[in-house]
Amino acid sequence: MNSFALDPQLEADTHRVGDLDFTRVLLMDDARFPWLILVPRMPGLRELTDLSLDDQHRLLDEINRVAHVLHATVKPDKLNIAMLGNVVSQLHAHVIARFSTDEAWPKPVWGIGARIAYDADNLRERIDALRTALQPVA
Amino acid sequence: MNSFALDPQLEADTHRVGDLDFTRVLLMDDARFPWLILVPRMPGLRELTDLSLDDQHRLLDEINRVAHVLHATVKPDKLNIAMLGNVVSQLHAHVIARFSTDEAWPKPVWGIGARIAYDADNLRERIDALRTALQPVA
Repeated sequence: MNSFALDPQLEADTHRVGDLDFTRVLLMDDARFPWLILVPRMPGLRELTDLSLDDQHRLLDEINRVAHVLHATVKPDKLNIAMLGNVVSQLHAHVIARFSTDEAWPKPVWGIGARIAYDADNLRERIDALRTALQPVA
Repeated sequence: MNSFALDPQLEADTHRVGDLDFTRVLLMDDARFPWLILVPRMPGLRELTDLSLDDQHRLLDEINRVAHVLHATVKPDKLNIAMLGNVVSQLHAHVIARFSTDEAWPKPVWGIGARIAYDADNLRERIDALRTALQPVA
């Protein structure tokens, strides 16, 4: 039985884009950075190494897919990809589009300033664009 | 022709552990964190997506191998895995053993305090342990 449940902190900080085959795709609710989070939809995961090598490849393939979508849609100067989990222990991968003009550059984004929530129009526009680019998402 | 050359900043900040099939394994010269960096030995790479999907899998497999070695040798509370590249553009993956007692916890390690170089004895001991655990490394 797959009793996957999203961590409450991830739930609170993000909007759901949709489900790919292996992961749930979330948009961090921070208009400063185009920032996606992929969460494998399996219970009890904490470290990358908790996944079988095959499932690690599935996760990587979806990271790769999301990375291509961010490259195509927002044309970043750099992508930042990371699995940290010091605060939220549920295994999740950050894929963040970075610009040399963004607030945190060249530092990593974590802990820099305060999150700025999307307004309703920008949120709808961004999620629609991501869903179109990631077709099919459930 | 493979004209791979290590980025001078990575060269300056790290010690060479050895070469796996696909990547060069480096130890960050910071005794505060057991911190390895894997660099695919191919020229001209900047983003993960510059690699073919097969080569991304090879990189992931070596990240996975190094992660298992860090788990076995230093028993961290958490691993942090990241590809950032905002400062050093040559594609490289960080695999960092984190402890809830370390100087940066629970923040990411980048930009926290000042690097503390290993002394000669601790450096030799750490590199010997890593080389043994990663056998065969060239």
